[in-house]
Amino acid sequence: MLPALAERLKLLTQTGPDTDMGRLLRTFWQPVATGHSIKAGSAQPLRVMGEDLTLYRGDSGRAYLVAGRCAHRRSLLHTGWVQGEDIRCIYHGWKYAGDGQCTEAPAEGPAAAARIRIAGYPLHEYCGLIFAYLGEGPAPAFDLPRKEAFEEPNVIVRSRIQVWPCNWFQMVENSLDAVHVSFVHLAGKVGPFGEAVTAAIPKLDYSETDAGIRQVATRSETNVRVSDWAFPNNNHIVTPGYSKNAPWVHRGVWNVPVDDTHTYKVGVYAFPSTTPEEDRTTLEHFEKHSDYNPADHHDELFIDRSWPEDPSLQLTPAQDYVAIMGQGDVVDRTQERLGKSDAGIALLRKIFWREMEAMRGGRPTKTWRRLAHAEELPVQGARREASAAR
Amino acid sequence: MLPALAERLKLLTQTGPDTDMGRLLRTFWQPVATGHSIKAGSAQPLRVMGEDLTLYRGDSGRAYLVAGRCAHRRSLLHTGWVQGEDIRCIYHGWKYAGDGQCTEAPAEGPAAAARIRIAGYPLHEYCGLIFAYLGEGPAPAFDLPRKEAFEEPNVIVRSRIQVWPCNWFQMVENSLDAVHVSFVHLAGKVGPFGEAVTAAIPKLDYSETDAGIRQVATRSETNVRVSDWAFPNNNHIVTPGYSKNAPWVHRGVWNVPVDDTHTYKVGVYAFPSTTPEEDRTTLEHFEKHSDYNPADHHDELFIDRSWPEDPSLQLTPAQDYVAIMGQGDVVDRTQERLGKSDAGIALLRKIFWREMEAMRGGRPTKTWRRLAHAEELPVQGARREASAAR
Amino acid sequence: MLPALAERLKLLTQTGPDTDMGRLLRTFWQPVATGHSIKAGSAQPLRVMGEDLTLYRGDSGRAYLVAGRCAHRRSLLHTGWVQGEDIRCIYHGWKYAGDGQCTEAPAEGPAAAARIRIAGYPLHEYCGLIFAYLGEGPAPAFDLPRKEAFEEPNVIVRSRIQVWPCNWFQMVENSLDAVHVSFVHLAGKVGPFGEAVTAAIPKLDYSETDAGIRQVATRSETNVRVSDWAFPNNNHIVTPGYSKNAPWVHRGVWNVPVDDTHTYKVGVYAFPSTTPEEDRTTLEHFEKHSDYNPADHHDELFIDRSWPEDPSLQLTPAQDYVAIMGQGDVVDRTQERLGKSDAGIALLRKIFWREMEAMRGGRPTKTWRRLAHAEELPVQGARREASAAR
Repeated sequence: MLPALAERLKLLTQTGPDTDMGRLLRTFWQPVATGHSIKAGSAQPLRVMGEDLTLYRGDSGRAYLVAGRCAHRRSLLHTGWVQGEDIRCIYHGWKYAGDGQCTEAPAEGPAAAARIRIAGYPLHEYCGLIFAYLGEGPAPAFDLPRKEAFEEPNVIVRSRIQVWPCNWFQMVENSLDAVHVSFVHLAGKVGPFGEAVTAAIPKLDYSETDAGIRQVATRSETNVRVSDWAFPNNNHIVTPGYSKNAPWVHRGVWNVPVDDTHTYKVGVYAFPSTTPEEDRTTLEHFEKHSDYNPADHHDELFIDRSWPEDPSLQLTPAQDYVAIMGQGDVVDRTQERLGKSDAGIALLRKIFWREMEAMRGGRPTKTWRRLAHAEELPVQGARREASAAR
Repeated sequence: MLPALAERLKLLTQTGPDTDMGRLLRTFWQPVATGHSIKAGSAQPLRVMGEDLTLYRGDSGRAYLVAGRCAHRRSLLHTGWVQGEDIRCIYHGWKYAGDGQCTEAPAEGPAAAARIRIAGYPLHEYCGLIFAYLGEGPAPAFDLPRKEAFEEPNVIVRSRIQVWPCNWFQMVENSLDAVHVSFVHLAGKVGPFGEAVTAAIPKLDYSETDAGIRQVATRSETNVRVSDWAFPNNNHIVTPGYSKNAPWVHRGVWNVPVDDTHTYKVGVYAFPSTTPEEDRTTLEHFEKHSDYNPADHHDELFIDRSWPEDPSLQLTPAQDYVAIMGQGDVVDRTQERLGKSDAGIALLRKIFWREMEAMRGGRPTKTWRRLAHAEELPVQGARREASAAR
Repeated sequence: MLPALAERLKLLTQTGPDTDMGRLLRTFWQPVATGHSIKAGSAQPLRVMGEDLTLYRGDSGRAYLVAGRCAHRRSLLHTGWVQGEDIRCIYHGWKYAGDGQCTEAPAEGPAAAARIRIAGYPLHEYCGLIFAYLGEGPAPAFDLPRKEAFEEPNVIVRSRIQVWPCNWFQMVENSLDAVHVSFVHLAGKVGPFGEAVTAAIPKLDYSETDAGIRQVATRSETNVRVSDWAFPNNNHIVTPGYSKNAPWVHRGVWNVPVDDTHTYKVGVYAFPSTTPEEDRTTLEHFEKHSDYNPADHHDELFIDRSWPEDPSLQLTPAQDYVAIMGQGDVVDRTQERLGKSDAGIALLRKIFWREMEAMRGGRPTKTWRRLAHAEELPVQGARREASAAR
């Protein structure tokens, strides 16, 4: 049985290895880095759900994820040397394979090395992202994170990762909160997202699916927004393109805990290819603006109250950032006043608590699977006609 | 009954809503911002005695002070929109009147809105400052903070606020500590304040008044300094003007807790108007130097040991800052060694403890009121003749 | 009796006045500042083993070390005035002699002053460093820190101090860890130190001496490294000179706790004088590069992975910094896996625990004394011949 409400609200926010949520999240593949952030033969530190890890690519180019520190005297492994497919500690040269097995302990000898193992986690690269499985036992098939829209023949895929200094769960809640779009995304300049959804209050519909939650927000007959949210932390939406006539973009967004006060906001952007000319324009726009992270502009947003220029890749996340970070690094949910329009958030929490309770009780959790048929995610709003006509 | 000494000393420093001192301070009007810091139609965050608040001016120009966060999902209100005399949250558009009443909850409807209220506090603008009453029940008449000297017909009034990163009470104690002037204000270059009081050790006299404490420090027959300190945290002194022949300035200084390790140092400066020429010189001097805050120069003062240029508006507060911040962010009073020359501090604490004890016991606290006749605050020292002769 | 292992490991890292290690360390002279860092008639704050102190030189040039704060109202003493051989507080002018006796309390009178005393500690200047004795009772003779090599007639001596943001004990352990040289000092560019020791795994020999621990690392017949480590925190080694033909340098390195997460890395460098020309070159090199502190380049070293230019005074400490800081600010020794090659570390801890246990039990601790005959510290490696031939 889960504890009383205040404690249950706290459970949603704690993701370390010894927490209920931490155990649950670790049964899923999670994107933890962009593929291009790490070169063959190099290593870097990586923090995921409160665990300090070492991400490296072997000389072959294959990526590995092992513990952050050497078993011996606890120095960070990423400061050492990648040698072949192994990584060697700077301090006394202990060497580890990508699965965490110690393969050499120079001043101790081979028998000692054979007895030593550090954490090592399976990785899978997809859509320009490195996904990791941090759970115990064998990793599940890499299926739930996949989306047809990202794999279509004529699609160009890009990805980016930001770190926001707040708890992951208020970022997830924002995905299941269709009303916020009517206010947050009108702040500052109105970007195409604001244009697309308008300030009207939507009629809401949330329903559990095989994959997670289907969210429908109906603002008018021609303005229906659907998103396909996959358990435990991925949202799949469509958003307006970067220019007036550009096709809408499929976006997958994951909120992955760095630790309980920092979160990776991981985005996949799938642009339908059109003409070489327009493809290049779209990609140039993406390259130019996608390294924006509102967390680097905190004081501008909260004190100076000035908004970034680019509407899609800068303004939209900046607007969400102001609303979500404005709740504090971990929002105090004991003080909130939820209403009927928070139906998505209520359903979300109910599902998480159900799954945590099953896990605690040793009962099977739900087997989440990719939808048999991709959800149709309609484009809408003022710019719908142009886009839909393509 | 109040607890033992170590605990009673701690009571002096704790000002949150649930503390003895916090409850006591909240029964007084407190200056919390300069009027010019906030424009009509805009909002900003404000922290007072550990409470996070939203200060805004309606489109009419009237100022309001409400809770820092929206009741709904706890996002900061100042990032939203001022609309008429109300403020609307960025996240889901909940709107509040200046008294904290929710007037609109767009996705929830009017009945829900009517049931929602956040904190809202009365404000009063005076001498270019915004005063707030954060207590329960109706605010007292705005009388105790007033001074005749600020309201005289021929007086020019200016104000400024600094934040110092230390506890409020050691700043208040400094006001009731006449001896410090003989040392602290000789540090670095000797400013006019140092000239005016000299290094002689004064004969001290402290007595409780209707308003607070009358402090008299006699260094010689012609060097008598009197200050009129009003409970709980205002000092009224006169200080030399900004140039050799300028008249002395009436100063009101409040020390208002931001929280228990930060304090607003609020100053009102009343300059007697003389000639248009001299008035302009005085005001230009004030504008040029009054945005100095020693806290922005901490390392210069503590490590490089270099003092600011302007003697009145920069050096004098910098000297106090070094002495007071040098005690630590919250001075450890269990380690202090008070002497007979700390009579003002002893009286100050005795009065605070008496009032807190009354409040705890449900007995009436003292009704502090403005002095029937303004205290005469003599100018003194080397520059006395020139000034007094005006 | 000392407690169980996890607690005993923690004892090694805690150095405040009320800890076992703190009491033990305080029975030794410790270098706490370079002599040139403080001028006659000036004062500065100094933190040693968690105590906040005031270091000043009287007008005579003699150095004194007293408590950080005035007994009266706890303001920092270094912001006041050095007057003759005394120091006066900025706040109310209380004056103290170099032994901590209050000599004047202006507003309290002489009888009050006579009753007041703050901490005052003996100092001794040696090799350009100021050593302090922070223990109770009379200081021992200043003998253990001395080294013949620093006092030879033809030797030029220089010193420097860095602060590293980690616990002192992992820095001491690094001194008794000969294997690390084979890996750490090959990182980045290979400096002369790397050349001198090579990557071969040494045969190790550690033995307790009258002064501390003799460490011998034999990599080959012609590559034998000996160091003379003196209890509780000094290492004496020889390292290659700054240019191909320069003689090897005698180095004394102390690791003195600032507090439990910061450490002074104090170095004495004794260069044998050769020709005026070469002496000047060596000193110019030292002046140019010795103000490098890897802690000022933390992100360059850990994130950008870029190494400093100069091999001796910059690269070598940077390499150690990466290995030692990589363990965390206080390494979690309950997670380590020591091996046979950690014999020096094991002996080091055993000795410390033995001494702490004696102190706890009220039994005499060992009387450590300088070796009767200086340890011969052979130069070695590729550059041995040139150097040894001088």
